[in-house]
Amino acid sequence: MWRELLPIGRHSDSGGYRRHAWTGADADCRAWFRQQAEDRGLAYEVDRNGNQWAWLGDPAAGDAVVTGSHLDSVPDGGAFDGPLGVVSSFAALDELRARGARFSRPLAVVNFGDEEGARFGLACVGSRLTAGLLTVEEAHRLTDGDGTTLAQAMEAAGYDPEGIGADPGRLARIGAFVELHVEQGRALDLSGDRVGIASAIWPHGRWRFDFRGEANHAGTTRLVDRRDPMLSYAETVLAARREAELAGAVATFGKIAVEPNGVNAIPSLVRGWLDSRAADQQTLDTVVGGIEKAAREYADAHGIDLDVVRESFTPVVEFDHALRDELGRILTTASDHLKVPVLGTGAGHDAGILAGRVPTAMLFVRNPTGVSHSPAEFAAEDDCVAGVHALADVLEGLACR
Amino acid sequence: MWRELLPIGRHSDSGGYRRHAWTGADADCRAWFRQQAEDRGLAYEVDRNGNQWAWLGDPAAGDAVVTGSHLDSVPDGGAFDGPLGVVSSFAALDELRARGARFSRPLAVVNFGDEEGARFGLACVGSRLTAGLLTVEEAHRLTDGDGTTLAQAMEAAGYDPEGIGADPGRLARIGAFVELHVEQGRALDLSGDRVGIASAIWPHGRWRFDFRGEANHAGTTRLVDRRDPMLSYAETVLAARREAELAGAVATFGKIAVEPNGVNAIPSLVRGWLDSRAADQQTLDTVVGGIEKAAREYADAHGIDLDVVRESFTPVVEFDHALRDELGRILTTASDHLKVPVLGTGAGHDAGILAGRVPTAMLFVRNPTGVSHSPAEFAAEDDCVAGVHALADVLEGLACR
Repeated sequence: MWRELLPIGRHSDSGGYRRHAWTGADADCRAWFRQQAEDRGLAYEVDRNGNQWAWLGDPAAGDAVVTGSHLDSVPDGGAFDGPLGVVSSFAALDELRARGARFSRPLAVVNFGDEEGARFGLACVGSRLTAGLLTVEEAHRLTDGDGTTLAQAMEAAGYDPEGIGADPGRLARIGAFVELHVEQGRALDLSGDRVGIASAIWPHGRWRFDFRGEANHAGTTRLVDRRDPMLSYAETVLAARREAELAGAVATFGKIAVEPNGVNAIPSLVRGWLDSRAADQQTLDTVVGGIEKAAREYADAHGIDLDVVRESFTPVVEFDHALRDELGRILTTASDHLKVPVLGTGAGHDAGILAGRVPTAMLFVRNPTGVSHSPAEFAAEDDCVAGVHALADVLEGLACR
Repeated sequence: MWRELLPIGRHSDSGGYRRHAWTGADADCRAWFRQQAEDRGLAYEVDRNGNQWAWLGDPAAGDAVVTGSHLDSVPDGGAFDGPLGVVSSFAALDELRARGARFSRPLAVVNFGDEEGARFGLACVGSRLTAGLLTVEEAHRLTDGDGTTLAQAMEAAGYDPEGIGADPGRLARIGAFVELHVEQGRALDLSGDRVGIASAIWPHGRWRFDFRGEANHAGTTRLVDRRDPMLSYAETVLAARREAELAGAVATFGKIAVEPNGVNAIPSLVRGWLDSRAADQQTLDTVVGGIEKAAREYADAHGIDLDVVRESFTPVVEFDHALRDELGRILTTASDHLKVPVLGTGAGHDAGILAGRVPTAMLFVRNPTGVSHSPAEFAAEDDCVAGVHALADVLEGLACR
């Protein structure tokens, strides 16, 4: 099952995956999902927002237990972020059937569309639409780098974009959602555990810093006559690192756009995107406030105009405490007697989107490199198997009472 | 004449010009040049490298006086860089005819192709080919951002790329080349002069700095686990400014490419291009050496791999001293009694390419903003008229003896 998925959308130069929403690689992943459902005699369906579902039992019965994740990737992403959760869901179901489990609740595996937002710039489009956290109007305004709209992309992939939107009836039939995910950090590696449970998703946001100076000839303009926005940008990159270090948070400038971006031209515009996250709102405010203050001081000193725009923001997401405690109880009393640490995480997930609508939990599988969104992300086979066992135990504990 | 040229290739958003070699805007500029030649009864020809010539008198007679510049632009460039030299050449010829000048030497106006190198990444392609400073093989390896080769682009524009290459016979028939250009700096503005004469073009080069770290998730990777190349890049940008300030040179990071360039991804690669120039070779070596040393220290401290590649280099170009002195004599004794300062310049020009093959000189016209390669570059009408007078005086002095 894992082997069939591995080659899809893998780029030969980087070894990374380019499974962007509604592309050919995404279609191949979706065909794989459908085949897995059909091979197991599960009822396959696609919801109004293009998310794929594989049902065991009658969805209409309600109080369903749903597990799954996503199959799309960031540009040159790794093999595990997303697919590990979907593959483990099918594998856990196989294990439960092998155990002869009898299900008292409907159970489903889900593949949420466009979790990474690599193509349209917004993460978790499939789950956001379903949860009503992205309006139809907002969704129709999304375009990719080539100007293709989300609707055009869905249509080209053979899906009907007309019906997209909130799906409260579907969510009302879900009693619990559990997402298994490779850990995006080294906490489990440092504590020596194979599997962990999520406590909360850190508040996080994206801010765009536009530094505007004056385009000029790099060879002939005296330094004193320059208004070079690259200098203010560079100072701000270093300030972001300092502020994050002071606060125990993270702050990253990973994306930049420069105009005119010519070797012999002083830029007129340097646009840098800040991603920052912290364990709580107050810390995050302190970090971003400190970075913006430093940026303004540098900009003012060099005759640079600075605009700072918050492009997105997600407050802290606390996962359902009762469900989290139940997962802990199930896993510590199950056959494997796992010690399962409870971890916060800085990454967004479909589980974070659904958490406001449905009792939701997450399981993390150890990632010894701590690397994520890169071909170097990794989980050892033994740890993946432990993750499948844990997920099977959780599903059995929830759906076979 | 100037008005007809103004709208060609002007971009409505930026107000800047996008007259890149062998594009539609370039073709319109070339049609304008041909029309100017024909309107004046000059013999129009295109040489083997696509440069345009308008001849008064018999080229075969030899010892010709040639003036001109280029009509292409950088991305979103200004109206003056290049076109002022071509327009002034035709205007100076008109003025000489109005004065009733009698020419003892052949005279030509030239438009060199692809001076800015905005499309194929190499400046002065037309003059380099003619001077034999760019081999046919090198020229055929040039491609633009879309993968179009120079040959394909020339062919699409209706020119035959088969015959490109060195043209020593043509250069041998030229006795002097004079290029008039808008000043790319504020030296004339600061000294209060309308027109200046070039002494030399500073040595200059382009270096590519590749900072390689490790791509990772910006939300979940602890600061201590990161190898973020953006930090080393930022430190290096600031080091470049410091080193240039110390040495009285210029150093600029104006172009950058980041991989994967995602908002929530720590970059795996930050590639920055350094443009640096100084009055002499030793100073330039000191500046670039200092920047590279600083970059290596930062990179080593943060686990970043650094490669520095010199992509291009042009040694100092001293313009012909005898011709320079003759221009000074002509201008100071002409009717306008100009005081004509002699200036060095950090910018490359076709005149700099030809200087190794033909006695060459340059005239600069005051640019009160000092801005260049931007819509803000400017020369006042009075100063442009003074430039035309000066060029007419020079051509008369050289060609009507």
